[in-house]
Amino acid sequence: MKIEVAVIGAGRIGQIHAGNAARNPSVRLAGVADAVPEAARALAEQLGTRVMSVEEIMAAPTVHAVLICSSTDTHADLIQRSVAAGKHVFCEKPVDLDLARARACQTAVEASGRTCLIGFQRRFDPTFAALKARLDAGEIGTPEALAIISRDPGAPPVAYLQRSGGIFKDMLIHDFDICRWILGEEVATVYAAASCLTDPVIASEADDADTTAVTLRTVSGRLCQIHTSRRAAYGYDQRFEVLGARGLLQAGNHRPTEVTASGGDVVSTDKPEHFFLQRYEKAYRAELEHFVAVLEGKEKPRVGIADGIQALVLADAANRSWREGRVIRLAD
Amino acid sequence: MKIEVAVIGAGRIGQIHAGNAARNPSVRLAGVADAVPEAARALAEQLGTRVMSVEEIMAAPTVHAVLICSSTDTHADLIQRSVAAGKHVFCEKPVDLDLARARACQTAVEASGRTCLIGFQRRFDPTFAALKARLDAGEIGTPEALAIISRDPGAPPVAYLQRSGGIFKDMLIHDFDICRWILGEEVATVYAAASCLTDPVIASEADDADTTAVTLRTVSGRLCQIHTSRRAAYGYDQRFEVLGARGLLQAGNHRPTEVTASGGDVVSTDKPEHFFLQRYEKAYRAELEHFVAVLEGKEKPRVGIADGIQALVLADAANRSWREGRVIRLAD
Amino acid sequence: MKIEVAVIGAGRIGQIHAGNAARNPSVRLAGVADAVPEAARALAEQLGTRVMSVEEIMAAPTVHAVLICSSTDTHADLIQRSVAAGKHVFCEKPVDLDLARARACQTAVEASGRTCLIGFQRRFDPTFAALKARLDAGEIGTPEALAIISRDPGAPPVAYLQRSGGIFKDMLIHDFDICRWILGEEVATVYAAASCLTDPVIASEADDADTTAVTLRTVSGRLCQIHTSRRAAYGYDQRFEVLGARGLLQAGNHRPTEVTASGGDVVSTDKPEHFFLQRYEKAYRAELEHFVAVLEGKEKPRVGIADGIQALVLADAANRSWREGRVIRLAD
Amino acid sequence: MKIEVAVIGAGRIGQIHAGNAARNPSVRLAGVADAVPEAARALAEQLGTRVMSVEEIMAAPTVHAVLICSSTDTHADLIQRSVAAGKHVFCEKPVDLDLARARACQTAVEASGRTCLIGFQRRFDPTFAALKARLDAGEIGTPEALAIISRDPGAPPVAYLQRSGGIFKDMLIHDFDICRWILGEEVATVYAAASCLTDPVIASEADDADTTAVTLRTVSGRLCQIHTSRRAAYGYDQRFEVLGARGLLQAGNHRPTEVTASGGDVVSTDKPEHFFLQRYEKAYRAELEHFVAVLEGKEKPRVGIADGIQALVLADAANRSWREGRVIRLAD
Repeated sequence: MKIEVAVIGAGRIGQIHAGNAARNPSVRLAGVADAVPEAARALAEQLGTRVMSVEEIMAAPTVHAVLICSSTDTHADLIQRSVAAGKHVFCEKPVDLDLARARACQTAVEASGRTCLIGFQRRFDPTFAALKARLDAGEIGTPEALAIISRDPGAPPVAYLQRSGGIFKDMLIHDFDICRWILGEEVATVYAAASCLTDPVIASEADDADTTAVTLRTVSGRLCQIHTSRRAAYGYDQRFEVLGARGLLQAGNHRPTEVTASGGDVVSTDKPEHFFLQRYEKAYRAELEHFVAVLEGKEKPRVGIADGIQALVLADAANRSWREGRVIRLAD
Repeated sequence: MKIEVAVIGAGRIGQIHAGNAARNPSVRLAGVADAVPEAARALAEQLGTRVMSVEEIMAAPTVHAVLICSSTDTHADLIQRSVAAGKHVFCEKPVDLDLARARACQTAVEASGRTCLIGFQRRFDPTFAALKARLDAGEIGTPEALAIISRDPGAPPVAYLQRSGGIFKDMLIHDFDICRWILGEEVATVYAAASCLTDPVIASEADDADTTAVTLRTVSGRLCQIHTSRRAAYGYDQRFEVLGARGLLQAGNHRPTEVTASGGDVVSTDKPEHFFLQRYEKAYRAELEHFVAVLEGKEKPRVGIADGIQALVLADAANRSWREGRVIRLAD
Repeated sequence: MKIEVAVIGAGRIGQIHAGNAARNPSVRLAGVADAVPEAARALAEQLGTRVMSVEEIMAAPTVHAVLICSSTDTHADLIQRSVAAGKHVFCEKPVDLDLARARACQTAVEASGRTCLIGFQRRFDPTFAALKARLDAGEIGTPEALAIISRDPGAPPVAYLQRSGGIFKDMLIHDFDICRWILGEEVATVYAAASCLTDPVIASEADDADTTAVTLRTVSGRLCQIHTSRRAAYGYDQRFEVLGARGLLQAGNHRPTEVTASGGDVVSTDKPEHFFLQRYEKAYRAELEHFVAVLEGKEKPRVGIADGIQALVLADAANRSWREGRVIRLAD
Repeated sequence: MKIEVAVIGAGRIGQIHAGNAARNPSVRLAGVADAVPEAARALAEQLGTRVMSVEEIMAAPTVHAVLICSSTDTHADLIQRSVAAGKHVFCEKPVDLDLARARACQTAVEASGRTCLIGFQRRFDPTFAALKARLDAGEIGTPEALAIISRDPGAPPVAYLQRSGGIFKDMLIHDFDICRWILGEEVATVYAAASCLTDPVIASEADDADTTAVTLRTVSGRLCQIHTSRRAAYGYDQRFEVLGARGLLQAGNHRPTEVTASGGDVVSTDKPEHFFLQRYEKAYRAELEHFVAVLEGKEKPRVGIADGIQALVLADAANRSWREGRVIRLAD
């Protein structure tokens, strides 16, 4: 008995999740919806399924779960409609750019009793997941400090940035989730410094920063530093390291190949995987497999809507800290 | 229009190739054959295809190509039957343990005009293929010397070794192919030293060695050293490095994750991928994609039956060198 | 004509500098002073020189320069006495724990026209100095962000901590200097979070922290994060990385040997050099050579008393930030 | 009581050893001799000692030991004269290019009861020595196979090559010593393949090879492969790895700094230390310290004239193997 899953959103990330669903032996891909009919049609054809409207998906009694991969402003509504229709949900981050709206959505999800997995795919990356498992197994004792480096190869267009909710909600939302996941505690204070250094239009036209330095202190005093940049000339840089009483665990970048070249000037290796589609290819697959395993009752959800809300709380606080130039206490 | 492909052999490696074929959007998996009916049935069910006999495969006019993944002693016959039936062939290495038999097979293939790709999957490994492309692009100039390290995590059972044709045909056959592929020249002399060091039954019951040191010198004097062992306590070790006039290219091991741990005693990383199924997972997929691209007329075959024969010639010479304790000249 | 140099302070760091002076072919070691006569005598004997009192050193017309390696509370006085006596000075950091006192000292030095090199030896570390030279050569363009990891293998005794001036002046003073040196700009805002996580007596008896997360923002918006800990189970961890418009430069740890071991569980390398005496052995030598070259008129001083003062300003601000839980603006 | 040591040979390597002797607190450098008086004078002046003739050295009753750093053709004579004069000897490799002459020298040394340390400095390299110590401690069990990579940055002038004794005595002599030292057994068979690939004059004018692939098999069947080249565009490449029953130990190159640069194309680190003077700087120092410790009765000699002879035996056999194109059995 295969699980019927429908996909809403046939863009870049929808194609990833729909493809992983189609290749999953426990899943039957019921259909694909998109606001742009051609996009839905192309993806449906490629995966051997059919185009559905959102209304059809919600009404179909055999559709067991919905993968929400549409634009951010539709997430909260679609989550609520899906759980109201009795369906389980996998939704890309963020739940919503507005914290109050996201919290209303959380209330609805929790009342429904349905699963709502939020797409923090980094938790499913082989390197990050292995590090977390070793940390949980006690390899380095209690975590004390976490340093995250998170850099994109280049900034998206200004038009995207203008609707992105700002760098803290758009880019660091993942890093805030990593912080909570790795340090295993809620955050008490947030301080964010930020600058616009790579392209002045990011400040002048999107009123945003492109380089940040964030400090989080948890309730028991564990410290987390997050450095991000919208531009790394050498590709996508995704590393973190956690110090514990008995040692250090570091998560390094992945490379396309393991070729080393020694020439007249230097010894060189590959740059990191180019961007998130390459780096997190395995993570997206594992994330979908986890969602299916949850639907089958074989695994407990490893990340829920509450995690999505908490990451948003931190992004909001970081944004305020930066705008107001002060430390934010989360009890405030 | 999908290409119909049938698979003969539903064992470990047959499952890999059949699975890759089933997931290839240009392929229709026509059926699976195996001497053990249950094995064929299990694989066919898993992949949503049907069980066929070898005879049915050969007789089916719509079957365009055959993937031969059965036991070594059946390879030559099945290759000849397939090309005689007008089908293209992908066959696991080696063509045959007997050089004369393999050469007869080569003659039949060449007369048929059909493609016969031999399963030297290492040529399709991302790291090895990238190194080769950079070498061909002239990055380090003319290759002068090649050093290959090739170690298995552990020896197979003695019963396997007894029918394997010996370590040079069973294990180094891949390394001989790497040598010809990377140095781009035929070999003139072969010297093989070998010992039984990991388990005395390998010598006493299989009359074989488990540790080798082979030297190949090409017609223009390029030098290749191959070191192999049946046992590496730390996993599957697959590296080589090629020195050229202007530098060095090294192919390193792949690791499951990029976690680094610093503890009281050492700084540590993961061991290499456990064995060939893990390390060459991407290579097997790329190899099948290449075979399909050849069938579609989009690519030229990158490795043919002549390469299978030449690797066998080197394995035969190495075996003789070891048995007789002398250097073998290939014009001999 | 050798340069006559006298050393004040025969403790651990005095032994380093006196030994480097004694081995320098341009230097004659005139004598060694220490408040503990046995310490002075032992070092003088070992290096083939004589014991002097501080008064003798100041009065000796042939003594050209003084290396001040005595306890922190004597630095400012000895600097002022030395320059008043017409001698050049090399002084260990910090100038003084009290900023006003240090500034008075700076005034005296600047009025004297004598050289006063402050012992920020990290600037002379081969790895850090090479990185800085490449940065100055424009390899990665303008620096935008700097992340420093600085961890000691273990905390000193509480009695030491009580007189140390606190973690920001005692430990991060070096990191503040690295920040100014690498980012090439003065700092505008300072935020310091800190905790006591490794040993409660550090808080209860020394009123100090052992783990810090500091953020510095320069006048043009460049960002620096400093993470320190008094305890790293795996040794002395001294790394930093600087992101620029065209790439990244990272300074890694040094290891005692380049042995790699692959065993049943992991692939491992050496831990970093144990502590500062090992890691900065070459830096201390190069620093002394630089001081001698300055005295010979061959090099311009690469770090002066003003750098010592500025690092102290940042340490003071960080301390205040932590104590008051707020961002400090340096124009304040 | 300092040990009086005299140095014969004030060339490049003599300067290294004389300098290390002069800086050793247990040593008094009695004098320096050289066939070229200016060379002896310059070095003596630099180190604060005097020029002596070889006759004066041999006749001086207070000279306890002689460091022989003169040209290869003088080694055997000077060793014999020194031990006949009752002095201990440290002599650069090789003992002599002629095996019979070297053996006569060995007989004289052994009859004299004096220490004669041969300059296989690689045994004192921190990385190689640490690997050997871990091997001896049983970390990977019994050694089974050894792979040595040994490449120079560039070939010396032809005039040097013509008097060098050939690549096996001039360059691989060190690698043969490493083989015996690491595998801990004598060699039974030798096979050497070699080519002239980097510069045709090496063959045409020096009748020598520049690229080699040597295989050694010990009496119990352990295997060693040595690859050398006179040219590595990226510097001095000095690595080896030893496989044992329980794992692998690898000795890697040393780098001048630990800077990593990530740019538009690659991630790069430093090339290895340029050549032997840089790479083995610490080894030369440790070697001299060991010699002094032996003279003081604090350590047993770790490498003697018998080791020099055995390395020469292997070099001779490799040369014959290459010239005659056959395997050499050392019992032959």
